[in-house]
Amino acid sequence: MMKKHNFNPGPSALPDYTIDETAKALYDFAGTGMSLASISHRSKEFLAVLEETKTTFKEVLNIPDDYATIFLGGGASLQFAMIPYNFMAKKAVYVDSGSWASKAAKEAKLWGEVVSIKAVDYMELPVNYNVPADADYIHITTNNTIFGTELHTDPQFDIPLIADASSDILSRPMDVSKYAMIYGGVQKNLGPAGLAFVIIKKEMLTKIVADRKIPTMLNYQIHVDNDSLYNTIPVIPIYASLMTLRWLKNLGGLDAMYKINNEKAALLYNEIDTNPLFAGTVRKPEDRSIMNICFVMSEKYKELEKEFLDFATARSIAGIKGHRSVGGFRASTYNAVSLESVTVLVDAMKDFAKMKA
Amino acid sequence: MMKKHNFNPGPSALPDYTIDETAKALYDFAGTGMSLASISHRSKEFLAVLEETKTTFKEVLNIPDDYATIFLGGGASLQFAMIPYNFMAKKAVYVDSGSWASKAAKEAKLWGEVVSIKAVDYMELPVNYNVPADADYIHITTNNTIFGTELHTDPQFDIPLIADASSDILSRPMDVSKYAMIYGGVQKNLGPAGLAFVIIKKEMLTKIVADRKIPTMLNYQIHVDNDSLYNTIPVIPIYASLMTLRWLKNLGGLDAMYKINNEKAALLYNEIDTNPLFAGTVRKPEDRSIMNICFVMSEKYKELEKEFLDFATARSIAGIKGHRSVGGFRASTYNAVSLESVTVLVDAMKDFAKMKA
Repeated sequence: MMKKHNFNPGPSALPDYTIDETAKALYDFAGTGMSLASISHRSKEFLAVLEETKTTFKEVLNIPDDYATIFLGGGASLQFAMIPYNFMAKKAVYVDSGSWASKAAKEAKLWGEVVSIKAVDYMELPVNYNVPADADYIHITTNNTIFGTELHTDPQFDIPLIADASSDILSRPMDVSKYAMIYGGVQKNLGPAGLAFVIIKKEMLTKIVADRKIPTMLNYQIHVDNDSLYNTIPVIPIYASLMTLRWLKNLGGLDAMYKINNEKAALLYNEIDTNPLFAGTVRKPEDRSIMNICFVMSEKYKELEKEFLDFATARSIAGIKGHRSVGGFRASTYNAVSLESVTVLVDAMKDFAKMKA
Repeated sequence: MMKKHNFNPGPSALPDYTIDETAKALYDFAGTGMSLASISHRSKEFLAVLEETKTTFKEVLNIPDDYATIFLGGGASLQFAMIPYNFMAKKAVYVDSGSWASKAAKEAKLWGEVVSIKAVDYMELPVNYNVPADADYIHITTNNTIFGTELHTDPQFDIPLIADASSDILSRPMDVSKYAMIYGGVQKNLGPAGLAFVIIKKEMLTKIVADRKIPTMLNYQIHVDNDSLYNTIPVIPIYASLMTLRWLKNLGGLDAMYKINNEKAALLYNEIDTNPLFAGTVRKPEDRSIMNICFVMSEKYKELEKEFLDFATARSIAGIKGHRSVGGFRASTYNAVSLESVTVLVDAMKDFAKMKA
């Protein structure tokens, strides 16, 4: 096969190690003589995989002992519904920093008052806002996949902080202790779609709204009590996520990963800023995402958009078309996207400029 | 690898074709040069897969045109919550024929009155019961994975019929027109865990409780309107399910499959009934499942249970231990379990009897 430089926004590139090991396990899982797809999720071999996934996640992200890590079928969108169902008694704060943040807030509106914090538009992140002390929690989206903005630090609030980190989890070291809950779909930096991770401070479980009848599958307490095994857990995404975590640990953990991610982002943003044909879309440099790098053709070269897309495609560059709501280009430079792939893209931009400028 | 005769109850055996094609696609999906795990669920290549999955499902199961077929992340347990959330205004009937049926009913109790229909115990199916005409729907479980009972016909009711067919979907031809909705997890007869199928009569969508605020992800209307693509669909289970559907169609469809399933079941039940060491557990012959065949050591040979399990294990027979709530043995003879594997099990029972009787 001709291998592509895969800049897909998600589902997205995974390490070759993850793909290889998962494909091998589809034929024979852990020497059982059975496929990973056909193994009982309660077999001792799979329980060992689940346990290692949790402990490696905990080790790599440095999750404190007073947190539980669980994995649930479905993705982040189901969590959007579960969060207010469990934790919103009357009022919650939602930082509306992008399309996904807005979808999360929509589910909270079913349960009470949503205090929405928004900048002038999604091209920058809100700053210096007040958080009402009587809100049940504040919800943020650490990285906005569609608009390419990202919060690079772990904020501190006086009320519980819940973060959707779907698209930048494991891209940098985090201070987990600042959060009441961190969650996300696994399909950016961990594994194939169909699974969500939830890192939750155990104390937060005491804040589940007491007088609300919560469907069993939507109740965080049930999933923590059952250690992710209340129902049939999607075994393939768990296995693949473990392979990615092993790969990440082997590479040197989050410090090493963050360094590589910054190198990739610096290389591409530098090209965007210096190449006359291209321009960035995020307003402030400090808001720029290192996971989803958005850019457009500069004003003078607007009509070359389609031509550059074809030029890049011919160089085996895939997935750089911007989201349909934004247009232009977006290169998703998740953990598994190599510096080499980013270099190929940057070279394409340089060569295209030579041809056209 | 030493290949096992896999009688796992779920996740369970899948056709070799499904495993082979899925593993190949993990390396290169549809000639894209990208892994199936890393492909956009909105790419034209994946949309073609999703479309073919729906049309083949429709063709094989003979789903009428006035039904929608959708696929949702998560499994049947989430559907247990969604069904009453959408359709139960005040009252619903639940046929309590097993542990899963009981779990489904539990979620309905959050919304109103549950009329529970139960036989003396789970070793037989309820018969000749009355269904209140003012109930919003009746819910049945077509096959009870744990206790090994199965409804072999499609019942007719005057109120909408909703069926959990997780563990016998595609095992026999069904008259879909008798049902308002048929649903299930895919992990028995279709693909790896992490996905549910929902076949729903479009008219049923008009019965979604109008004055209830339903979280977006739990609303069937949203998923039908978005054609299974409201959020990121788990691409691997979809792809694998398509491979299984192709395999099934190629084998001759449900008539052919049903014939094979009956042969397998007849072979094993005959051994259970004639071998003095073993005994069936389901009370009435007409209730016996052709998907999950439960048996125990007969009274006189009770103490040989562990020994027979080891004897079978030595012959590469896997997954026949009964559910922890029932004990004894359960051979799950899903579509992908071959007549050859069942023969190996029957021969083991015969040889064990020769040794011991």
